[in-house]
Amino acid sequence: MSDYQAPVRDMQFVLDEVFSVDKLWARLPELSELDWDSALAILEAAGKLCAEQIAPINRSGDEQGCSFNAGSVCTPKGFPEAFARFAGGGFCGFCGEAELGGMGMPKTLGVQLEEMLAASNLSFSLYPILSAGAALLLNAHASEAIKQTFLPKLYSGQWCGTMCLTEAQAGSDLGLIRTRAEAKEDGSYKISGSKIFITGGEHDLTENIIHLVLARLPDAAPGSKGISLFLVPKFLVREDGSLAERNQLSCGSIEHKMGIKASATCVMNFDGATGFLIDAPGKGLAAMFTMMNYERLGVGIQGLGAAERSWQNALAYAKERKQGSEAGSQEAVSIIEHADVRRMLLTMKVLIEGGRAFSCYLASQLDLAKYSKDAAERERAEALVALLTPLAKAFLTDIGLEVTVLGQQIFGGHGFIREAGQEQLVRDVRITQIYEGTNGIQALDLAGRKLVSNNGAFYRLFADEIKDFIASAELGLQEFTTPLAKALNSLDELTTWLLKQGKQDRREIGAASVEYLQVFGYVTFAYLWAKMAQVALAKEGDFYLGKLASARFYFARLLPRIHSLAETAKAGSGVLYELNEALF
Amino acid sequence: MSDYQAPVRDMQFVLDEVFSVDKLWARLPELSELDWDSALAILEAAGKLCAEQIAPINRSGDEQGCSFNAGSVCTPKGFPEAFARFAGGGFCGFCGEAELGGMGMPKTLGVQLEEMLAASNLSFSLYPILSAGAALLLNAHASEAIKQTFLPKLYSGQWCGTMCLTEAQAGSDLGLIRTRAEAKEDGSYKISGSKIFITGGEHDLTENIIHLVLARLPDAAPGSKGISLFLVPKFLVREDGSLAERNQLSCGSIEHKMGIKASATCVMNFDGATGFLIDAPGKGLAAMFTMMNYERLGVGIQGLGAAERSWQNALAYAKERKQGSEAGSQEAVSIIEHADVRRMLLTMKVLIEGGRAFSCYLASQLDLAKYSKDAAERERAEALVALLTPLAKAFLTDIGLEVTVLGQQIFGGHGFIREAGQEQLVRDVRITQIYEGTNGIQALDLAGRKLVSNNGAFYRLFADEIKDFIASAELGLQEFTTPLAKALNSLDELTTWLLKQGKQDRREIGAASVEYLQVFGYVTFAYLWAKMAQVALAKEGDFYLGKLASARFYFARLLPRIHSLAETAKAGSGVLYELNEALF
Repeated sequence: MSDYQAPVRDMQFVLDEVFSVDKLWARLPELSELDWDSALAILEAAGKLCAEQIAPINRSGDEQGCSFNAGSVCTPKGFPEAFARFAGGGFCGFCGEAELGGMGMPKTLGVQLEEMLAASNLSFSLYPILSAGAALLLNAHASEAIKQTFLPKLYSGQWCGTMCLTEAQAGSDLGLIRTRAEAKEDGSYKISGSKIFITGGEHDLTENIIHLVLARLPDAAPGSKGISLFLVPKFLVREDGSLAERNQLSCGSIEHKMGIKASATCVMNFDGATGFLIDAPGKGLAAMFTMMNYERLGVGIQGLGAAERSWQNALAYAKERKQGSEAGSQEAVSIIEHADVRRMLLTMKVLIEGGRAFSCYLASQLDLAKYSKDAAERERAEALVALLTPLAKAFLTDIGLEVTVLGQQIFGGHGFIREAGQEQLVRDVRITQIYEGTNGIQALDLAGRKLVSNNGAFYRLFADEIKDFIASAELGLQEFTTPLAKALNSLDELTTWLLKQGKQDRREIGAASVEYLQVFGYVTFAYLWAKMAQVALAKEGDFYLGKLASARFYFARLLPRIHSLAETAKAGSGVLYELNEALF
Repeated sequence: MSDYQAPVRDMQFVLDEVFSVDKLWARLPELSELDWDSALAILEAAGKLCAEQIAPINRSGDEQGCSFNAGSVCTPKGFPEAFARFAGGGFCGFCGEAELGGMGMPKTLGVQLEEMLAASNLSFSLYPILSAGAALLLNAHASEAIKQTFLPKLYSGQWCGTMCLTEAQAGSDLGLIRTRAEAKEDGSYKISGSKIFITGGEHDLTENIIHLVLARLPDAAPGSKGISLFLVPKFLVREDGSLAERNQLSCGSIEHKMGIKASATCVMNFDGATGFLIDAPGKGLAAMFTMMNYERLGVGIQGLGAAERSWQNALAYAKERKQGSEAGSQEAVSIIEHADVRRMLLTMKVLIEGGRAFSCYLASQLDLAKYSKDAAERERAEALVALLTPLAKAFLTDIGLEVTVLGQQIFGGHGFIREAGQEQLVRDVRITQIYEGTNGIQALDLAGRKLVSNNGAFYRLFADEIKDFIASAELGLQEFTTPLAKALNSLDELTTWLLKQGKQDRREIGAASVEYLQVFGYVTFAYLWAKMAQVALAKEGDFYLGKLASARFYFARLLPRIHSLAETAKAGSGVLYELNEALF
């Protein structure tokens, strides 16, 4: 596999040139000391660490996998050392609060780190990323005492965090959770039950692991309203932060999986383990959603990272590999000269770069939601985050599969061979469409809770922003704004249709949701490609010519996908239910 | 993984009820003794053998893989025994000439056997399927002496055959082949060179392996016109058919792959091995195409088989797994009740059943091309086979990936776990889009050689058949024939456009070919679904209601894909070449 290079130049284009993040940071007091040059230096340092320490153990990690022995999990060779270096650089607390030992970085930079990590080594990335999500949850919902005890250790990477949701009978439907919590006299709780698919539930990277566990109190209401959240550490922690005895929990086994083999996916058994209630009883799922929303964007970025890695490999291969000659010549040319190889490469390129712009856009809304002092601005940003998070999770991971499959296809037969590295990316990225809520669940969230339930209020915020962009764009941008306006019009129509149908019959939401999400995604990318083209048009040089050509490719060959998707979405639920279960 | 059941009822529907194959066979002298009841008994026997002997070693074969030791290859546990049983049933010579020990079965039954084999165990299926392709080639191009010596042993499964084309520098572009052949005084040839990606190049299933090797004679023209074909057995063969000394060839290593791990993918080194010229010098590639066209349909059917296996598993899981409740209830329902799960299941179902109808249609044309006594009928059938073979290879394998990914998605997190079996199908089927000519190469073949090069003559044969069907269909079928006519009109328009563009600039063919093939595929499936609906409308009972509901789903939710594809195809090559190589 060719080496990974962090795409810092392209990150700079999006952050600095398209979104002018330094101006955003300058008006948010907690971020006002960060300037673009410092940010660039941080990105370069992170890119170097990822490329030199984490990317090289990606394939060996896949070959070796994690091993399980009597309750212990060994990560592959080099993982503990790489984790120590990563933590040593302060990256485990990258976006964590500075007063508790974090680096206090904005999410606009955080998503770049996540992309580099995922591109370097998706399995490796899950340990620190989940830990950062756990810290975020604790920061939002835990008591001051718990924050003081746990957050500095999570930010320093001495400890890791997990999220323990799924049970054998409770996957997409967390209301079916059975793990029990009983109050003890000392104010703590006794947690009993078994969780499956727990990423990083056990490993050898850190001295302690902090599990965030969903469970039911004895008098809890049925369904999701009866779920509470508990912090359950592998080793109990004394008041001074030192480790006490081992808690009553253990890893029962690890899964054998299609990919992310260096990430330990654990069965976790809680046998009367001591836990501490986070937030109020019955508020567990709501609190967990703080973490899940964070993770969902993170999972979307995993799709993007795997896609970027595949693209770098495929581009190098397409320039180097010679097959087929031009008419009238005997000499084979680089396959990048062939039209269909170009089609595949450009599809990869514009989906990745559109995805990167999207993750930056969403990250800037997260920064506003967290740091803005203007309540209206915060509220608007929160609405956009709520609307666009399921889109980021599902659309970017669907892109992840499409792009890694194309990147494998460009390698021909060699793409199927493990040594070339391209097939691992397909296997690894496949989980991103499934975990943290399947992409079908994301689509239901978008079309149901984020659209129909608020009668399109969030949607209109976003659509109006695009309309304002089109209205204020200069004449020279019409090549892009004209088709963008048409595409937005299609999305508007489809949204109106879905609002009407969905209010009459909830089934119609489920029947249209996946295609609706896809149309939404392609229109969002068209908006972002038009914004990128606007910047590129005003500048000179090959880099910007490349951006313009990419934007043209996107509008000519990918945006048209919305026509079929919109027609399919409108087919309605009738054809889904004509066949009753017995007829299948 | 749930057990595999051969879909004999559905095969019967397509063969007997839709295509009335017994009437076809009755008018072809070599097949006239075969009636439908006998055919059904053969299908049931084959299905039982596949389900009981070959399907159970699919997952263990994946886990164990093939092993390589000092030039020898061991297949996984149970493979030699299963192969012996398969061969013992006469299935290695299923479509082989009866006078040389084959069963003389029509291709219309042969494709069913291939589907069952691929669904049961894709890795296993490659050994007999490649061997059957080698036998087909020898039957068409070898001398009588070679046929008499080799075909009975290939048909009985005592020996296996391979095809040795690819070299490190020659993949899609076989004109770059360097393996050399020098004439010896006894009329045989000395073959020297190294081949890669040779499926079944070495194994422990049979006592001899017959390699069909592409090589160059000393005075050969450059490029593909200078390629000749040689039969190179692992063990030389005496005149009486007994084995003599080992030939100068060896397996250098086997590949580590994403999937089909129980299929040995070999580097084969020919070190002055003795070979025998097949057909005339320089005719090697043309002769090999006899085999490759056969294999290409076979590879398409592999996509179909993997899809069918995934579907059987996903349907069982969707009925059994309970998640999520209906509004107003606490009780979780089977996930088959959820609209988006139904969308996925129905997409799988109609693509598989459409694919099965397509493979039967193409097989019936192969039977006509081989057995008809009417020259005009043979010529027409040959033209349809030439046109539709690249479509079958690429479209059915693209469907294979889409369907197995959906079948994995329906399993949620369990779909990513090896024990559930769904992820193996995704890994296995992925190679089918790559080998035997990548799907991009198939699209070029369809749009270039099979369309532009003959000015659309083959295409018009097929389009006229669909138009005749529409014109003669009863009024009650308008629900399907009206949208079919519109879709065919779109394909006609796109074809006219491509003929015009492609004659002016060959690059336009490459730029549009993949989307053109996809549009062609969806229109073909619409024709076949309309034919199936026609039969179902005339009958009563749940089975036929299910077919009608499936046809409606296909027209409502899958056929609309052609709109976006056609628009994209027409985007032209300009946007592909605006970015020069340096700008990438």
